[in-house]
Amino acid sequence: MSSTIGDRIKMTIYGESHGPSIGVVLDGLPAGVALDLEAIGREMKRRAPGQNKLATPRKETDSFTIESGFFEGRTTGMALCVRIENHNAHSRDYSLLKDVMRPGHGDYPGFIKFHGANDYRGGGSFSGRLTAPLVFAGAVAKQLLSREGILVAAHVAEIAGIKDRPFRAVGESRETLEALQADYIPLLDSTVREPMQDAITKARAEKDSVGGCIECMAVGIPAGLGEPYFDSVESKLSHALFSVPAVKGVAFGDGFALAGMKGSEANDPMALKQDKVVCTTNHNGGILGGITNGMPVLFRVVIKPTPSIGKLQHTVNVRTHEETTLEVTGRHDPCVVPRAVPVIEAVTAWTLLDLLFLMKRG
Amino acid sequence: MSSTIGDRIKMTIYGESHGPSIGVVLDGLPAGVALDLEAIGREMKRRAPGQNKLATPRKETDSFTIESGFFEGRTTGMALCVRIENHNAHSRDYSLLKDVMRPGHGDYPGFIKFHGANDYRGGGSFSGRLTAPLVFAGAVAKQLLSREGILVAAHVAEIAGIKDRPFRAVGESRETLEALQADYIPLLDSTVREPMQDAITKARAEKDSVGGCIECMAVGIPAGLGEPYFDSVESKLSHALFSVPAVKGVAFGDGFALAGMKGSEANDPMALKQDKVVCTTNHNGGILGGITNGMPVLFRVVIKPTPSIGKLQHTVNVRTHEETTLEVTGRHDPCVVPRAVPVIEAVTAWTLLDLLFLMKRG
Amino acid sequence: MSSTIGDRIKMTIYGESHGPSIGVVLDGLPAGVALDLEAIGREMKRRAPGQNKLATPRKETDSFTIESGFFEGRTTGMALCVRIENHNAHSRDYSLLKDVMRPGHGDYPGFIKFHGANDYRGGGSFSGRLTAPLVFAGAVAKQLLSREGILVAAHVAEIAGIKDRPFRAVGESRETLEALQADYIPLLDSTVREPMQDAITKARAEKDSVGGCIECMAVGIPAGLGEPYFDSVESKLSHALFSVPAVKGVAFGDGFALAGMKGSEANDPMALKQDKVVCTTNHNGGILGGITNGMPVLFRVVIKPTPSIGKLQHTVNVRTHEETTLEVTGRHDPCVVPRAVPVIEAVTAWTLLDLLFLMKRG
Amino acid sequence: MSSTIGDRIKMTIYGESHGPSIGVVLDGLPAGVALDLEAIGREMKRRAPGQNKLATPRKETDSFTIESGFFEGRTTGMALCVRIENHNAHSRDYSLLKDVMRPGHGDYPGFIKFHGANDYRGGGSFSGRLTAPLVFAGAVAKQLLSREGILVAAHVAEIAGIKDRPFRAVGESRETLEALQADYIPLLDSTVREPMQDAITKARAEKDSVGGCIECMAVGIPAGLGEPYFDSVESKLSHALFSVPAVKGVAFGDGFALAGMKGSEANDPMALKQDKVVCTTNHNGGILGGITNGMPVLFRVVIKPTPSIGKLQHTVNVRTHEETTLEVTGRHDPCVVPRAVPVIEAVTAWTLLDLLFLMKRG
Repeated sequence: MSSTIGDRIKMTIYGESHGPSIGVVLDGLPAGVALDLEAIGREMKRRAPGQNKLATPRKETDSFTIESGFFEGRTTGMALCVRIENHNAHSRDYSLLKDVMRPGHGDYPGFIKFHGANDYRGGGSFSGRLTAPLVFAGAVAKQLLSREGILVAAHVAEIAGIKDRPFRAVGESRETLEALQADYIPLLDSTVREPMQDAITKARAEKDSVGGCIECMAVGIPAGLGEPYFDSVESKLSHALFSVPAVKGVAFGDGFALAGMKGSEANDPMALKQDKVVCTTNHNGGILGGITNGMPVLFRVVIKPTPSIGKLQHTVNVRTHEETTLEVTGRHDPCVVPRAVPVIEAVTAWTLLDLLFLMKRG
Repeated sequence: MSSTIGDRIKMTIYGESHGPSIGVVLDGLPAGVALDLEAIGREMKRRAPGQNKLATPRKETDSFTIESGFFEGRTTGMALCVRIENHNAHSRDYSLLKDVMRPGHGDYPGFIKFHGANDYRGGGSFSGRLTAPLVFAGAVAKQLLSREGILVAAHVAEIAGIKDRPFRAVGESRETLEALQADYIPLLDSTVREPMQDAITKARAEKDSVGGCIECMAVGIPAGLGEPYFDSVESKLSHALFSVPAVKGVAFGDGFALAGMKGSEANDPMALKQDKVVCTTNHNGGILGGITNGMPVLFRVVIKPTPSIGKLQHTVNVRTHEETTLEVTGRHDPCVVPRAVPVIEAVTAWTLLDLLFLMKRG
Repeated sequence: MSSTIGDRIKMTIYGESHGPSIGVVLDGLPAGVALDLEAIGREMKRRAPGQNKLATPRKETDSFTIESGFFEGRTTGMALCVRIENHNAHSRDYSLLKDVMRPGHGDYPGFIKFHGANDYRGGGSFSGRLTAPLVFAGAVAKQLLSREGILVAAHVAEIAGIKDRPFRAVGESRETLEALQADYIPLLDSTVREPMQDAITKARAEKDSVGGCIECMAVGIPAGLGEPYFDSVESKLSHALFSVPAVKGVAFGDGFALAGMKGSEANDPMALKQDKVVCTTNHNGGILGGITNGMPVLFRVVIKPTPSIGKLQHTVNVRTHEETTLEVTGRHDPCVVPRAVPVIEAVTAWTLLDLLFLMKRG
Repeated sequence: MSSTIGDRIKMTIYGESHGPSIGVVLDGLPAGVALDLEAIGREMKRRAPGQNKLATPRKETDSFTIESGFFEGRTTGMALCVRIENHNAHSRDYSLLKDVMRPGHGDYPGFIKFHGANDYRGGGSFSGRLTAPLVFAGAVAKQLLSREGILVAAHVAEIAGIKDRPFRAVGESRETLEALQADYIPLLDSTVREPMQDAITKARAEKDSVGGCIECMAVGIPAGLGEPYFDSVESKLSHALFSVPAVKGVAFGDGFALAGMKGSEANDPMALKQDKVVCTTNHNGGILGGITNGMPVLFRVVIKPTPSIGKLQHTVNVRTHEETTLEVTGRHDPCVVPRAVPVIEAVTAWTLLDLLFLMKRG
């Protein structure tokens, strides 16, 4: 299994939903960087469970302790390990799921892969809880990117078919982007908030769940990031993004709409603006030939509906090797899209920082 | 820059469109494997240019010589290097493009990244020509996968808004899949061939280009492939797929349609079929928790319209730092989707073989 | 910085001498392996400080907690994180050393590399204390190797010029090898124990320190381990061995004596023994062409004398940029060679297990 | 197998002694660097066979062609592939060696590892011929290091027991170091040249071979190179050095002599010299805590005697599974030490450049 990602900066995560702790080791951070731990805490809180009635009632403060690599308020340049204790695990909720596979979950592939030795409690290492260390890593990366003038922000583009307005592809103001972080459901058009909340509430009432899309933008990105042939910006970002549970699609710029466009529509004309080379449109999401062109990096991911649902489902018992039915109980989010927003931002920030360090070669 | 991809098997590519040769070094192949060089040659020919009037008139046989790692008809277990000479390069076509950036191409990001030192002739290392070594690597991988009962095939799902019927998500017959390789535009529904050809011909006549989608399926995949947390099947496949020029989106299973689905619709019910655990639907594209579940692996990529078009475009001259216009001449495909099909299959086969070898641990 | 080592199995260590904890994340272990935690504890104890009057008086039990990857007594197949708390740190001992560089230590290179941001207490991340996680990793690897019939053992070959008899190059009995682990100074010839102890005691009395050599042997190794061109057995072992603080030389088989030998002396004749291909000598330390030949893997490392000494030394103050003198106080080992023995065994076991998994390809 | 080495810069080699070509792909070189191809040719010639009667009579000019990554006299920033054709292969010399294993060679381990599928002609991929691409890579690295004021040089420290004077550990003049490259046997004390030559000539006459040592020094190295915990300077250098055929030991600074030294002898006192922090001795070979301290990097490797000897040796036939005898014929060096000197320099230069690029982080 691969618990490490990154080239110039690497993160190695560990942990299971119901073990004593989860955490991450960050390697390759520059030495002497002051970190704003309160800002990191705020990012952690955006993702933390139990925030409101739209989310899982599992209560976790997601408070963290830094075990190494941070001394007198600054990074030391050596591995920075952060540890997040698990507190509110209800292992009794899951004991029946050792043998009965939850449809839509990693239970069955994990059972096969690990020969039944995996920790099945609360999804074990497949749990969305493992995204907490990602958010920590992303919060550190955001602070480093900020020093270079780079800002990463995302919004809920769609939930249950209800759509927010998309980002303006050539760029949004930093004020607009920063304001997004204040809300549990970050939106550009606040009029869709209530319909989205209603859809989530309705799904919960129906013992069902809903999916959606997240759109992410990074502004302030210099031209030149990306390491083709094989480590294009799209390759590295998608690699990281597909590590986030429930992500099933990633598309840059106009994405799948490009299939129906002509070259004359999809090509972004170039021009000079205040003596700077720019594109006047951004159908390519700020990336050409796998390398950033100085326009905002823009992409969209799809988040599938939470597979844990209370409705009756057909499945198998792998111990008895029989067909059976299942109603998943326990504490679940009827929609993980809002809580996935800071996670998408986090892996994006981490990957862009890695690409930035890769670009700065000797 | 990163010219190497893979974990247990690695490929390292080199070359530019107008240099003496392009090639690839394959590392980590098992020893003693007989390779069918004629079958490899057939795969190479599927991608080769100059096949018909729908494609670029550049003539390249893409014949190859194996320089190492292959002895007495079998792999030696050491690095297998293959070399493909460039013959039909017209460098005069490109000399004007040193300073005038082609919109939609990697010209400008490459100019910034490499400080103007990149080989600008024919797109240099950004050229689609570099996909020839990928097809070689994929053809080798296909032969190794075939011994495990795994078959990878793709079809043109969409060109210029005209759509082929999609794959049956729970699986297509091997006959259907194998038959796809015979055509320049591989289709499940041959009635859309002529409309697609017309759209391409029309785009060429208009000095424009068209995009499309490719859908790819792998059958015979065992459950258990994939190395989460960070090397999920989706992560590794998308990483490789986004290395293919013009790919701007990758989506697994129902992809972006999952945004509007409910959990009860997106979860694939499990059942026993001839005593084997199966899913009765395949909305998740054969991957759950980042690991294959034994269903066909299924995904779709979008290919943007060829950025090289003869229409007048607005751009900049980076030497004079002035705005200018450009009509791209030279020999270009008005639609690269058909030639991209074997490339998509190739990187998919290579990645699945890597995942298969990763799964077989001590 | 690189805190991760390994290909098929990776370990990522973190921690500083005086931080809250040190630890390691082991990734890539097979699922379902029962681990004998008591046996691991015994290995940890061999390295732990404060065992006797020959070693540092710093008291650390080096008890550990497994945070993830271990469930119901078996590995889960996901990242196994172990955490070792620091208890007996005396930070007051080190505060003066922030500016005054200790000769022979990483203080000055670390100060330059990390711009003064490194944790200087107790050597920070350069501390020998970081070898505790290595021993944990090695203890796990030993249990997995044991299932394949592989045994790794080492002895103190030399301290302060006093020499133990060398291993019989063609192999020692398992009883002999296993018996070595019982002693703080593992020796083949126990008559040199007292002279060695006296030399250490004398060095301490003189506020000085002594160095030595460790010889290590692995038996039961199959032929075929090693991944040349660049990941030969020697390359991978030396890479890991030189990560152990104080190691300054690594030599396989007859090592530097080969410089004065002839081919007819250095070549190991081959023969059949009970129908098995063997060598009748082992001047090459069980490795030819970078690959194991089935003979015991045999090598020797040199451990430099502990740089922390009470004697007056000339050095510089990097803050005042002046020359100065220093007498290092604090709790130090006058000879780290005995405590380095289990560490050398550990990194050897880890590396051989990695090579074993690398060999088992698809 | 691993045919790639390096972190920020990677080289991937391919080829066998008797295949059409050998070569290397260099990845990660900065863009826009002018390369002096004549200087590279001179380095290649230092290693090339057939230079004089002390070496193998195999004639290879080792002329090279650059296939990619080099345009208009400068690096492009993309993969630089170099190709060296094999000309003077006498495959008839080796056909008997398919089954009869040469003692001291990788024949038997290779036969086991590759199940008999390896190219056995001329040692195949184990051939010393594969060091030619290493020298090319090293020559490129030397030019890049030179721009940073770094010079790497080596001399024959010992052949057949006859010793050159060692390097002055605190540094040799650049004139002295540069002068070494002029001779087939580079020596600091030219009075030992004739005895060494005689020893080699005598070994050849006796159908035997001799070994030796090479000492290597890099001057101009800044403090701060090295990436502990696991990628210390010693770890990375030894990893690369042990990839060179026949190297069996690597020792830094005083090396194995440190076993008999006291801390007060082995610690290098620090002082200020022209306001610069220096050590007044260099027992640690310029490396402390795995990081360079600004003193010359200094180490020694042992080269075992050429295993190919004409004397009668006992061995086995792996096809018939019988004991047999063998007199190795063909064209061999009775002593590879002189030709190994530029190879040692090459892998050292490559590794130091990689470390230099690793140090320059964001």
